[in-house]
Amino acid sequence: MKKPLILVTNDDGIIAPGIRALVEVAAEMGEVVVVAPDSPQSAKGHAITIHEPLRLKKVKVFEGLEAWECSGTPVDCVKLAKHVVLKDRQIDLCVSGINHGSNASINILYSGTLSAAMEAALEGIRSVGFSLLDFSFDADFGPSKQWVQTVMTFLLSRPFQRGQLLNVNIPKLASNDIKGMRVCRQADARWVEKFVEGHDPSGHPYYWLTGEFINNDHGLDTDIWALENGYVSVVPAMHDLTNHEALSTLSALNH
Amino acid sequence: MKKPLILVTNDDGIIAPGIRALVEVAAEMGEVVVVAPDSPQSAKGHAITIHEPLRLKKVKVFEGLEAWECSGTPVDCVKLAKHVVLKDRQIDLCVSGINHGSNASINILYSGTLSAAMEAALEGIRSVGFSLLDFSFDADFGPSKQWVQTVMTFLLSRPFQRGQLLNVNIPKLASNDIKGMRVCRQADARWVEKFVEGHDPSGHPYYWLTGEFINNDHGLDTDIWALENGYVSVVPAMHDLTNHEALSTLSALNH
Repeated sequence: MKKPLILVTNDDGIIAPGIRALVEVAAEMGEVVVVAPDSPQSAKGHAITIHEPLRLKKVKVFEGLEAWECSGTPVDCVKLAKHVVLKDRQIDLCVSGINHGSNASINILYSGTLSAAMEAALEGIRSVGFSLLDFSFDADFGPSKQWVQTVMTFLLSRPFQRGQLLNVNIPKLASNDIKGMRVCRQADARWVEKFVEGHDPSGHPYYWLTGEFINNDHGLDTDIWALENGYVSVVPAMHDLTNHEALSTLSALNH
Repeated sequence: MKKPLILVTNDDGIIAPGIRALVEVAAEMGEVVVVAPDSPQSAKGHAITIHEPLRLKKVKVFEGLEAWECSGTPVDCVKLAKHVVLKDRQIDLCVSGINHGSNASINILYSGTLSAAMEAALEGIRSVGFSLLDFSFDADFGPSKQWVQTVMTFLLSRPFQRGQLLNVNIPKLASNDIKGMRVCRQADARWVEKFVEGHDPSGHPYYWLTGEFINNDHGLDTDIWALENGYVSVVPAMHDLTNHEALSTLSALNH
């Protein structure tokens, strides 16, 4: 049987330990091609580069595997992978991550990792974003690998579903302490921003974004609940942002 | 009665003609504060700036109105507006645009204009992104103004609804040729990318993104249908990206 073609990307950059862990799992399951940013691209959301050219360079980063670094955003990487690197070959699965840090709840909107996966889904490719709830560069991705493998095996063993997209988050726990996996909805949480204010060496003021993540969504069916209770969370996501329930409430605008 | 506090932003930058048209309409309806990027920020999606400081400067751009330019993305502008400029005063409405170019269908994902509106909605603020289907800097925003006013009046005259978000697109037509307004769902269209390949003056290859917008969604209830048939489109949008229908199909992953 032909090995599946698996595209791997991320937003922390091609030398991040998280993508290495993901590549190691993927390499056991199919033909792997890596196209990832040449520098950290966290919090870039669904940004694309339209006002300047992109650079794309073949690099030796993963022993025996084809890998390219790209100067653009994670979404740019997916577009270049599909159209330039893979010249529209059929990609069986796109995996993005493993992100250093949570992309649960509304972080899906800010996350380059998930935006890359979303872009692949828009192209019709089955796609998953993986994130570990540990921001540190030295995060231990060991316990994550079996869960990554579980999700990838699940998708590759089932009939292809156009544009399928999953947001998978993994708690920062030892293997034995992870209780299992839960399919969930996105918690309706939010960031309460703060800005650290200061002055630069020239005396000009600056503002540096920080904030606190607040979850007031107490449902037991959310990703935040799953993660706080020791489970890996799996949220099926989509690119249709229409608030279908609100359509009828706006009918007065039809005229 | 107290005038409503209206925050105005965009992604084309504070000196774009589109935001000027929007400010002119808003100034007739409430107290206006403008916080907008100091340079074009198209296609920045929901990017935020976390690895460097932001600059914020009070500027005189709109006669008699408070206006600030910001070095960050459209989403950064909204965060700074709420927490630094307005110091958490209650914002009654956030309007973003008028964008030079369409943000219908999946363009909502790439658009800085709509991401700014989405960010305001995440903060609980009622919010609208307005876009005119004309990319040119010299686009005629005259015919758009009455539709902007219609939508803003509608929202301000109704009870406050936390996090309400609308994506409004206006066809490039003379006033008399616009047939009316339609509340719609987001069309399931897509971009087919192409990359223009070339070599820079040093001989290094580059790739420049371009593409073609393809709509295979033939529903008569979509924003693309409305726009192609001479109507202003209004899509209620939301930040919950959960594919609720898919939850049950993934139950095998619960373990």
